[in-house]
Amino acid sequence: MNDRFLRALRREPVDRTPIWLMRQAGRYLPEYRATRAKAGDFLTLCKTPEYACEVTLQPLDRFPLDAAILFSDILTIPDAMGLGLSLEERVGPRLAKPVRTPADIRALPVPDPEGELRYVTDAVRLIKRELADRVPLIGFAGSPWTLATYMIEGGSDREFKLAKEMVYGAPDDLAIMMDKLVQSITAYLNAQIAAGVDAVMVFDTWGGVLSSDAYQRFSLDPMAAILRGLTKNVPTILFTKGGGLWLERIAATGCNAVGLDWSVDIGEARRRIGDRCALQGNLDPAILRAPIPVIEREAKAVLASYGTGAGHIFNLGHGITPDIPPEHVTALVATVHEASAAYHQSA
Amino acid sequence: MNDRFLRALRREPVDRTPIWLMRQAGRYLPEYRATRAKAGDFLTLCKTPEYACEVTLQPLDRFPLDAAILFSDILTIPDAMGLGLSLEERVGPRLAKPVRTPADIRALPVPDPEGELRYVTDAVRLIKRELADRVPLIGFAGSPWTLATYMIEGGSDREFKLAKEMVYGAPDDLAIMMDKLVQSITAYLNAQIAAGVDAVMVFDTWGGVLSSDAYQRFSLDPMAAILRGLTKNVPTILFTKGGGLWLERIAATGCNAVGLDWSVDIGEARRRIGDRCALQGNLDPAILRAPIPVIEREAKAVLASYGTGAGHIFNLGHGITPDIPPEHVTALVATVHEASAAYHQSA
Repeated sequence: MNDRFLRALRREPVDRTPIWLMRQAGRYLPEYRATRAKAGDFLTLCKTPEYACEVTLQPLDRFPLDAAILFSDILTIPDAMGLGLSLEERVGPRLAKPVRTPADIRALPVPDPEGELRYVTDAVRLIKRELADRVPLIGFAGSPWTLATYMIEGGSDREFKLAKEMVYGAPDDLAIMMDKLVQSITAYLNAQIAAGVDAVMVFDTWGGVLSSDAYQRFSLDPMAAILRGLTKNVPTILFTKGGGLWLERIAATGCNAVGLDWSVDIGEARRRIGDRCALQGNLDPAILRAPIPVIEREAKAVLASYGTGAGHIFNLGHGITPDIPPEHVTALVATVHEASAAYHQSA
Repeated sequence: MNDRFLRALRREPVDRTPIWLMRQAGRYLPEYRATRAKAGDFLTLCKTPEYACEVTLQPLDRFPLDAAILFSDILTIPDAMGLGLSLEERVGPRLAKPVRTPADIRALPVPDPEGELRYVTDAVRLIKRELADRVPLIGFAGSPWTLATYMIEGGSDREFKLAKEMVYGAPDDLAIMMDKLVQSITAYLNAQIAAGVDAVMVFDTWGGVLSSDAYQRFSLDPMAAILRGLTKNVPTILFTKGGGLWLERIAATGCNAVGLDWSVDIGEARRRIGDRCALQGNLDPAILRAPIPVIEREAKAVLASYGTGAGHIFNLGHGITPDIPPEHVTALVATVHEASAAYHQSA
């Protein structure tokens, strides 16, 4: 197996900086859009292991990426909790039964990952077989706070009004909700690990909208509890978008790698926490819209900012968007592999 | 004059922590909505000095705030450049003639602040007269980068696609655009100062969406150029929403105060830059939706985090939203004045 990704997560020497891209299996790929059309709708795509496997492998067949990531959605858990998920492009996710009262919270089940969520572990098993150890497979879940925002709002709200109302007006109720989410996500990730994923990542898309104290209590502490609850020792990645102020605290959870969005200078992040964990990131995804020479220059700037030695997993600072020409990704992956060799001379 | 605000900006001793609120003249006040209805539309409200004066003073008549801020909009400059501004509630701002090509940029005029923008300086003169030295008056402008995003996109785009395309694909064109904006904003703020404002603030609402390097070049350096171009020595405040990672660099511009959004712990910010400048902020505006005891507790937590001594101007971490009950603001202002006295014992 190409184990650059796993070695970099453990900060062991590698020959080149590994690269994978958040949302690498996605709408920017014509083959993805074809499978999506076959499936009919996004949820069927997620819930049919054969389709999920197909789209997970598509970017690997096209680009020499160093890791695969399970194709799924962070809202599979609220869906399995019976909240009535619908996903529509452009509109964004909707949950028909939002969670707003203490009674709603008490009624929340902890989904059985081999029950309602069996399609996810089935997909993991199928992908692992089809991957045939080419590269490692990453499993993932949304963070408790991120899932809570959708569950409370019933969808997306730019200001997170109702979710923040609970943070400030009903923190004890929210804490109970967080406990249920921690239990659910821990069981879910443990099941993905049992099914074969080689690393897990927690996506905290909305932690950055919180104040420093509220982030600690309602986003970071629950994520740390999840890490403590993992039953097998696989490498872990925590990514809080907009969490650049809190890198030291994120690293203190004991995760193997911290995901960085593009607002952080990765060299500065390394000086702050690089003695404790690996760093994943962090090219601005908007750069992939620029001409290829610009992509090459900016990718090299990220590599140079990180500098020599192990512990860097190249990625974007957020997911790749649907409007990116696939050949721009080809150029990015080639640049990272070629230009990074110089930073790993001693390997 | 109640000069707590100006003293705090200079980090001189005060008896209590001064407080004002971003967007304090706004839709959450019934008297504002009445004036707005009289004016007919938002742009007429901005462009009629009598109306602008009326709404500027409304929050002062209701709450014992320590500063007034000119009622206006950050997009007055693109409007004066002839880009065809329209402002609609819920839809957001639109510019009919976006700026996207080198020719568009070359054609941009530098508006005369006593010409097309005369209504602004007229409003300042009228407000100063009506304020009768009760409290200082803050003038303001949007940052060059923030204005550029609206000018390039022709409105708001969550991903700032076209603006970032210029950052990465046409940085030299964008630099020319920035020069024009720096000239325009500098002249605009100098005219506000000549008309009587006691301090000026630059609102960099969208600097936080940039990478560390792009922020320096396209947001912070232009703001620093504006500060250097101010002809009279009035105190200055720079506020980059999402700029918590860059506080040291913001402080290095020589501004008197740095505005903080709510993601930063103000005590940590003070340890980082409080020996060089005052700090303004930073209660999460969402807290104003919570019950009054929660507002009191959270406001006290901000005061306690800043700690004893001068240099703190209390504010929200972003503008107040239209759904806030005015009596919640009454409670906030009273709490800040009462609870802060203990932190200024030596004054």
